Amino acid sequence: MQVSFSPADIAALVQPKSTRGATTETIRGLASLTDAAPGDLSFLGNPKYKPEVAATRASIVLLPSDFAGGPAANQLFLLVENPSVALARICARIEAGLWPKPAPGIHPSAVVAPDAKISATATIGPLCVIESGAIVGERAHVQAQVFLGRNVRVGDDSWIMPGVIVATECVLGARVRLQPGVVIGSDGFGYEFVKGRHEKVPQVGHVVIGDDVEIGSNTTLDRARFSRTSVGEGTKIDNLVQIGHNVVIGRHCLLCSQVGISGSTKLEDYVVLGGQAGLGGHITIGKGAKAGGQAGITSDVAPGAFVNGTPAIPFQLERRLAILHQRLPDLFKRVDALEAAAR
Amino acid sequence: MQVSFSPADIAALVQPKSTRGATTETIRGLASLTDAAPGDLSFLGNPKYKPEVAATRASIVLLPSDFAGGPAANQLFLLVENPSVALARICARIEAGLWPKPAPGIHPSAVVAPDAKISATATIGPLCVIESGAIVGERAHVQAQVFLGRNVRVGDDSWIMPGVIVATECVLGARVRLQPGVVIGSDGFGYEFVKGRHEKVPQVGHVVIGDDVEIGSNTTLDRARFSRTSVGEGTKIDNLVQIGHNVVIGRHCLLCSQVGISGSTKLEDYVVLGGQAGLGGHITIGKGAKAGGQAGITSDVAPGAFVNGTPAIPFQLERRLAILHQRLPDLFKRVDALEAAAR
Amino acid sequence: MQVSFSPADIAALVQPKSTRGATTETIRGLASLTDAAPGDLSFLGNPKYKPEVAATRASIVLLPSDFAGGPAANQLFLLVENPSVALARICARIEAGLWPKPAPGIHPSAVVAPDAKISATATIGPLCVIESGAIVGERAHVQAQVFLGRNVRVGDDSWIMPGVIVATECVLGARVRLQPGVVIGSDGFGYEFVKGRHEKVPQVGHVVIGDDVEIGSNTTLDRARFSRTSVGEGTKIDNLVQIGHNVVIGRHCLLCSQVGISGSTKLEDYVVLGGQAGLGGHITIGKGAKAGGQAGITSDVAPGAFVNGTPAIPFQLERRLAILHQRLPDLFKRVDALEAAAR
Repeated sequence: MQVSFSPADIAALVQPKSTRGATTETIRGLASLTDAAPGDLSFLGNPKYKPEVAATRASIVLLPSDFAGGPAANQLFLLVENPSVALARICARIEAGLWPKPAPGIHPSAVVAPDAKISATATIGPLCVIESGAIVGERAHVQAQVFLGRNVRVGDDSWIMPGVIVATECVLGARVRLQPGVVIGSDGFGYEFVKGRHEKVPQVGHVVIGDDVEIGSNTTLDRARFSRTSVGEGTKIDNLVQIGHNVVIGRHCLLCSQVGISGSTKLEDYVVLGGQAGLGGHITIGKGAKAGGQAGITSDVAPGAFVNGTPAIPFQLERRLAILHQRLPDLFKRVDALEAAAR
Repeated sequence: MQVSFSPADIAALVQPKSTRGATTETIRGLASLTDAAPGDLSFLGNPKYKPEVAATRASIVLLPSDFAGGPAANQLFLLVENPSVALARICARIEAGLWPKPAPGIHPSAVVAPDAKISATATIGPLCVIESGAIVGERAHVQAQVFLGRNVRVGDDSWIMPGVIVATECVLGARVRLQPGVVIGSDGFGYEFVKGRHEKVPQVGHVVIGDDVEIGSNTTLDRARFSRTSVGEGTKIDNLVQIGHNVVIGRHCLLCSQVGISGSTKLEDYVVLGGQAGLGGHITIGKGAKAGGQAGITSDVAPGAFVNGTPAIPFQLERRLAILHQRLPDLFKRVDALEAAAR
Repeated sequence: MQVSFSPADIAALVQPKSTRGATTETIRGLASLTDAAPGDLSFLGNPKYKPEVAATRASIVLLPSDFAGGPAANQLFLLVENPSVALARICARIEAGLWPKPAPGIHPSAVVAPDAKISATATIGPLCVIESGAIVGERAHVQAQVFLGRNVRVGDDSWIMPGVIVATECVLGARVRLQPGVVIGSDGFGYEFVKGRHEKVPQVGHVVIGDDVEIGSNTTLDRARFSRTSVGEGTKIDNLVQIGHNVVIGRHCLLCSQVGISGSTKLEDYVVLGGQAGLGGHITIGKGAKAGGQAGITSDVAPGAFVNGTPAIPFQLERRLAILHQRLPDLFKRVDALEAAAR
């Protein structure tokens, strides 16, 4: 993508608390502190990279307002409350160019049921299939090769990316963003073992996605056995995550990639799950609780707790045990010595 | 979905052994014991929820025949051998409404090779691609945006959901159900390291799926290096599972979500793998063996064994070691004390 | 697939160093040593299977040149430097029949932007969507139901299989092979927590895939926050792998299935990651380093190191600690005895 911002454009976007130095460069790219060249803008988002500021060749650097150092020649420091938020504002401006708003209307190659209700301001892209009774809200963008099953509802201003499948009766809120390949409403994994065979338990519920939810590519959410699987407002789910049937996810949770949540488990609001964490079924994760990457959680987690490991235990305890585990060779030697002395 | 069942309709479906109480309500929904309102049917499927029966507002409750309590006013208890199986019968009735049988025929937007053999009773939905030599059986439903490669065979009464891809030469049995986004027959992951580069080992086998197999959304099964990767009759596979090349899976196995099985490993019949379990290559899991969630299995597992942990060991031993692991801080203190006393 | 090779055809393909015995059979299939019947070719690729050579019924067996035994009646041993490489040559011949080269041209059902640049020697299959500014190189095969976003570039001789999605601005090198359902260029998972909500950090970078890269089915690669997520030349990635935003993967790496790599992590050349390994963000894995399956890596790994476990530590140490862990019951008993004796 091509970008072009004057230093004054950047300052207008990020509204710095103060500035140091100046540059005559036009900003044509964004880069990390070490990769940046003249003409790039960079930022200090993670304190880990503080030592890299002094050597960066970026023409403009976004820094936290308590940053101590000074700029090089032809370099502008913009001191802001939160460099990451400031950068996000610049990126939002660039994003508008990257993903231009499509014209409303239905592409002639899309296969749309006559009784589907497509808002006049919505865009239905090429080779989509929209079944009977589906409803697509105002300014929604159903991008390309998307499948919306019978009676599916897509809220206003939602963006459904290529290859997404939303099965029968599922409901999406407003401003929902589904990355490519997401599957909403596949059957839950439910069987009864009868006479040596797994007899299917029909899965006749649906999935309800709240407003402002974003779901990552190739993530799967199963429809409920009955009633609903649900994701609360503002929750963000990364790629390749599995959400089982009848799971209830609260508002403003963060689920990192490859997390798996078994059936009927409940996450209260503001839960954060690290990548590849796995949750058993029929448990409750309390409000604001966190789990480390690869944690294996098989029982309830208290609100605000931070757990780690498999089986998951409090983070500090898990870290302490891991350190003692590494001292096992020494412990065995010490016991050998005690036994030898006792003989 | 809208449902409407009289108490007599429900009794006719579940054939209760006995009943207690009565209700005048029409059943318009299904719900868990705690969520149910008048007009809902609920059930006791997991003994864990027994205390919730007394307070449920459900109009009809399916209960195991040895359940002791009595109903509230305007509430009907139906006592059955297995409440989950009874519920499944009701759900099967609802399911028929949720997924009405499509009319046979080929949608005009599908791209079907002239020499593909599509049964006259089969349904090929919109925007499918069916290549040369493919065969689709009686009453099969190939739903929408599905890809069937050259010489693929789909058995009678199978249901291939939107976005599924079945690559060249792969074979599906009868009554197979593939959830959205499944990939059957991608290349196995095989390379030889030659002069500093990974040289591809061509993957020229295929995949054979038995009768009554169900595969979850976005799960992937690789074609064999040569000969076949296979899944036995009646096996059920959850979402986002990875099956490597030349894997042989027996009959009536259950593979929970995000399981990964490396190449050439064999599962005998009735194996059950918990979510996110990972299996190394070239090993055998004996008949009826089970593995816990996130287990890491790198060697053969005996028939009937239940293993857990990474590396996987017998479940009871793994549990005992986990408890001792949590007592390590105490053990180190005890050894400290012994050493102090010995000085 | 049907194959037919005379013993002379096979010898011409694999160029054996020496031969033992002879066969009159025509080779009509490939099979493992135990599964092979007369008319099959087999091979000894893994020393583990050496005892199976004596009993194999295969008509031709590919063996390492230092193999000691002799053939049965009507059986031909071909002694070669590397039986796996020799087999690969035979499979490559078969593969050409399995995947015949398609005729160049654009299928009439594809939706291709007027200003996309499709090489005259490229093939665009049915129901693909190719957006404005996209470029498809010489002899590239974009198979079916593929989505190529705005300004995407596909290199010469690449093969993009059904259902693949390559989002806006992403770039693929030459001879890239993307298995079905791959998603390239979904948004990275980046949010800032502002006033109780997760505010999206726009992801305005792209993804760059080097020459000769192969990516497995339903794997996802996120676009960079800005600048690029990249995969180096010759790297092979298995199914259901997650690559976060701004990850940099070197040349000739191997990533097994279900690996997850968090944002901004760097893999140098020749890194090998076992299945389900998970890597934290902002770390570096040195050249030639290896990680075992399910390893959890949260800090830098030195070049050439082999790590295992969660948290990942050197492989030999991890194995030793695992053995001591299994001796914990005994250790507790020994400490009990020491305490009893000290009383």
